[in-house]
Amino acid sequence: MTETLTLESVKEHIRNVPDFPIPGIQFKDITTVLQKPELFSFVADTIAEHYQHKGITKVVCIESRGFILGGAVAHKLGAGFVPIRKPGKLPAETYAKDYQLEYGTDSIEIHKDAITSSDRILLHDDLLATGGTANAAIDLLKVFNPVAIYPCFFIELGFLNGRKYLGNYEVTSLIHF
Amino acid sequence: MTETLTLESVKEHIRNVPDFPIPGIQFKDITTVLQKPELFSFVADTIAEHYQHKGITKVVCIESRGFILGGAVAHKLGAGFVPIRKPGKLPAETYAKDYQLEYGTDSIEIHKDAITSSDRILLHDDLLATGGTANAAIDLLKVFNPVAIYPCFFIELGFLNGRKYLGNYEVTSLIHF
Repeated sequence: MTETLTLESVKEHIRNVPDFPIPGIQFKDITTVLQKPELFSFVADTIAEHYQHKGITKVVCIESRGFILGGAVAHKLGAGFVPIRKPGKLPAETYAKDYQLEYGTDSIEIHKDAITSSDRILLHDDLLATGGTANAAIDLLKVFNPVAIYPCFFIELGFLNGRKYLGNYEVTSLIHF
Repeated sequence: MTETLTLESVKEHIRNVPDFPIPGIQFKDITTVLQKPELFSFVADTIAEHYQHKGITKVVCIESRGFILGGAVAHKLGAGFVPIRKPGKLPAETYAKDYQLEYGTDSIEIHKDAITSSDRILLHDDLLATGGTANAAIDLLKVFNPVAIYPCFFIELGFLNGRKYLGNYEVTSLIHF
């Protein structure tokens, strides 16, 4: 790959899959970025460099695509990795948070011993869409009263306005549609 | 943390959760390792160093806990990241493989454009138990006729003999129970 890497060039490698998982949705497939060594490195390094002076102690990631770049970024920053998972997946004591979907509700969980009040948290998911999951994740993290919470997304679907549900946090997204 | 890190000391930080997810199972919870920065770094670095001279081009990881260390290792090795997922999660054309569970069957998928015959593959999951999922993953990878496949696990439950179903591959596990 001889092109100079920029976020614009990364964006061109995201695959648009029409009508997935249901008719009318234009799915943004990031596997076509992750599988290219140069692009995967560039994206993870870009996120890590953005937060390198924030004193991040834990990278909290939302199951399951959030684990991929989140694992790389936590390692690069020398931080711990904490998963937020679907109900029934985490084996020890958890806090749970329900949140609204278009039809019905969903829930996410975090281990009660995963965070302390001295942590500075990078909260990562691959996608910010309507903001429902991210907002629930922030509510879970606030229980621990950490020093800081920085929400960070690889892709933001700006037309869905998810950012406005995330309060006054410093929200960072690399790629915008 | 002042202790000298070894795999034995990492093992002591794995949390045993009795009767999860069902009675009689002693669940090995790795979140207590991942959330400690020193331990997470040590484990990811140990895996990456083991494969650093193998010319790994893709790290293929099994959903979803396999994504965490797999993401860190792929980044450290400068390799691409490829997910193997449950049915219906990958949006483009896939190969699928069914495999036997104790009761019934399960299935995993990989994108058809994820691997080429020139790839050298590190196949990672967090746990080698009965070997059913890992064996199915190897079958999926063999379709691409890659140069090499190296299966690598964080934890191996040796008493379940999963390793014997993985053929003649060079299987590496960091922690043994």
